[in-house]
Amino acid sequence: MNNTGLLLSKRIRKTPFTDRVRSAGVSGFTVVNHMLLPKGFLHTAEEDYWHLKKFVQIWDVSCQRQIQVCGPDSLALIQMTSPRYLKKIQPGQCLYLPVTDENGGMLNDPVLLKIDEETYWLSIADSDLLLWLKGLSVGRSLKTRITEENIFPIAIQGPRADNLMTKIFGKKINTLPFFRFDWFSFCGKTQLIARSGYSKQGGFEIYFNDPENGSILWDALMKAGEEFNVRPGSPNLIERIEAGLISYGNDMTIENNPYECGLGNFCNLDKADGYIGSNALKKALNQGIQKRIMGVLFEGLPCSNPETPWSVTVNDKESIGKITSAAYSPQLACNIGLAMISKPFDKLGTIVEIKQSKNQSEKGQLTTLPFS
Amino acid sequence: MNNTGLLLSKRIRKTPFTDRVRSAGVSGFTVVNHMLLPKGFLHTAEEDYWHLKKFVQIWDVSCQRQIQVCGPDSLALIQMTSPRYLKKIQPGQCLYLPVTDENGGMLNDPVLLKIDEETYWLSIADSDLLLWLKGLSVGRSLKTRITEENIFPIAIQGPRADNLMTKIFGKKINTLPFFRFDWFSFCGKTQLIARSGYSKQGGFEIYFNDPENGSILWDALMKAGEEFNVRPGSPNLIERIEAGLISYGNDMTIENNPYECGLGNFCNLDKADGYIGSNALKKALNQGIQKRIMGVLFEGLPCSNPETPWSVTVNDKESIGKITSAAYSPQLACNIGLAMISKPFDKLGTIVEIKQSKNQSEKGQLTTLPFS
Repeated sequence: MNNTGLLLSKRIRKTPFTDRVRSAGVSGFTVVNHMLLPKGFLHTAEEDYWHLKKFVQIWDVSCQRQIQVCGPDSLALIQMTSPRYLKKIQPGQCLYLPVTDENGGMLNDPVLLKIDEETYWLSIADSDLLLWLKGLSVGRSLKTRITEENIFPIAIQGPRADNLMTKIFGKKINTLPFFRFDWFSFCGKTQLIARSGYSKQGGFEIYFNDPENGSILWDALMKAGEEFNVRPGSPNLIERIEAGLISYGNDMTIENNPYECGLGNFCNLDKADGYIGSNALKKALNQGIQKRIMGVLFEGLPCSNPETPWSVTVNDKESIGKITSAAYSPQLACNIGLAMISKPFDKLGTIVEIKQSKNQSEKGQLTTLPFS
Repeated sequence: MNNTGLLLSKRIRKTPFTDRVRSAGVSGFTVVNHMLLPKGFLHTAEEDYWHLKKFVQIWDVSCQRQIQVCGPDSLALIQMTSPRYLKKIQPGQCLYLPVTDENGGMLNDPVLLKIDEETYWLSIADSDLLLWLKGLSVGRSLKTRITEENIFPIAIQGPRADNLMTKIFGKKINTLPFFRFDWFSFCGKTQLIARSGYSKQGGFEIYFNDPENGSILWDALMKAGEEFNVRPGSPNLIERIEAGLISYGNDMTIENNPYECGLGNFCNLDKADGYIGSNALKKALNQGIQKRIMGVLFEGLPCSNPETPWSVTVNDKESIGKITSAAYSPQLACNIGLAMISKPFDKLGTIVEIKQSKNQSEKGQLTTLPFS
């Protein structure tokens, strides 16, 4: 057993950066896509939150695995799985994608990258999306080749990310628009870098394809970042909740459709030809969406993230939803949470009660997302 | 953060037994199928090993999720994914199943349970098999309904398992043959119990369907087991390696076909009508299987399980495979490991070298499985 209590084996995969992450004093890991994701370092989540909003952090997000879909039917296959209209995507472009099953139930929410006319990457959240894509492709006898690639994303997040990245990759990186990528050289290899990341503080993701040299990249980022007060970090619970960034497996599952998840803007049912959830989602729209993700502001001592969801009630115990992610917001000076709230209770300002445990109830209020 | 360093959230799911597992002093968890699996309690793996071989243990293996396939095409769908001949399976029967993709690459190795003529459960290892089954079914427009059920297996393993289970479920349970299941009552609900489990010490798995009452079942098992020296436990690394029980994600992956994994006895390519990997596996057989899982006996201080595989070499550095799981066997008084070994080096008694790290090499010898 290592010092963090998580027992390692080949099945729970290390990353090219795990050795450096450990040297940097990682305090714990979680597991995403059968791979380690650091969850904290030497500081509290609140200290990391302020630091992220002011400086720059390096995150080992290798667990955002790249599922590559190649071949003449690749875009048709991806379109089968998503209500977002994909036909106009250009090489160099990233698109956030709800991916669903035939019932419109969420299976993942990857970022889609168009590499070339017949090559796409899906940068996935925590489910084996490869199996869904392969199953559909084999079932329909499509011409595709679907593989998980040896690519290990590392995120550079925070307002000083541009300064840090310019020092290593030159001024061209400053001109990269949001959700676009380009190719940059590092140690003799060409790396895909996108302006993206799982925070609202700005930054980049390097889709690193040189696993033997992970420590060289990590060290280069840390050294270049010294003058900008760089730190190792990880996706920050407080910041992502404030920003309304939902998390697959936490705030949405196969039980939820994209509309319930606040992803209606990414649905173009009339244009997404071949999307297999189309009928199910049209029916859901006709019947009326029954619930939606909202923010909850609530009182009490600063809370920890719920291990199991907390019930949200009105009118003395009538259940209207559950809080699936929560944290104390230093900026708003109260607790904040994300909850799937049933209609007709999904009104801004609705007064609710949050039950964190048998003996602990707090008053709260519903609000729209993002919080700030 | 909890005391074991693994950060919990809804995404990393607790089980109906997690509270009791914690009270019992769990020392760490791993994650399987997005759910917690305890990895140890108050004793060392070697103490647990001897205990398991002499007495009886209770394992929270809820992470063996049950994928239910219902409907008229259910057996045809499952047969599409497996080279094992399934048509003769009877209600009440369990079958160990290699599940592969269209290239014959291993995707999972579940136990299949036939509940009734149109209802099957797949008790899965660590990959989202639901997505593969759903993808194929939707792609081929089959008549099935595929869901993950609210069922949480708990294993009772060890030579005193029959004594313990008889006290709770009566004498009928003694007559249950290996890999058969039947229905038994507990607290007013009917539970599926099979004679099965991830050890070679004998025992049962209760497919518990009453998550609100997990603690009641746990307490009943512990109380009934007192006189048999029962302990909380978990799949034991030493025991499973000695027994040659391979682990998906560790000793085999999508890169391996069933023959390489020593699962040729479960392949009936001529009878498994509709199996989509049939042509690929026939081709592989014609070309000759290039490697196979073997045991490795090796010297040195008692080893820990490799975090990343250790290379196995012959003739001064010629690589012939990698050790993916390893432990010190108290019974054999040496280290033992599982490794995928390239032909023609897969001969009993071949002398090899095992490199655990840059500066640590040990002599070893290849052997057949199981070790004992």
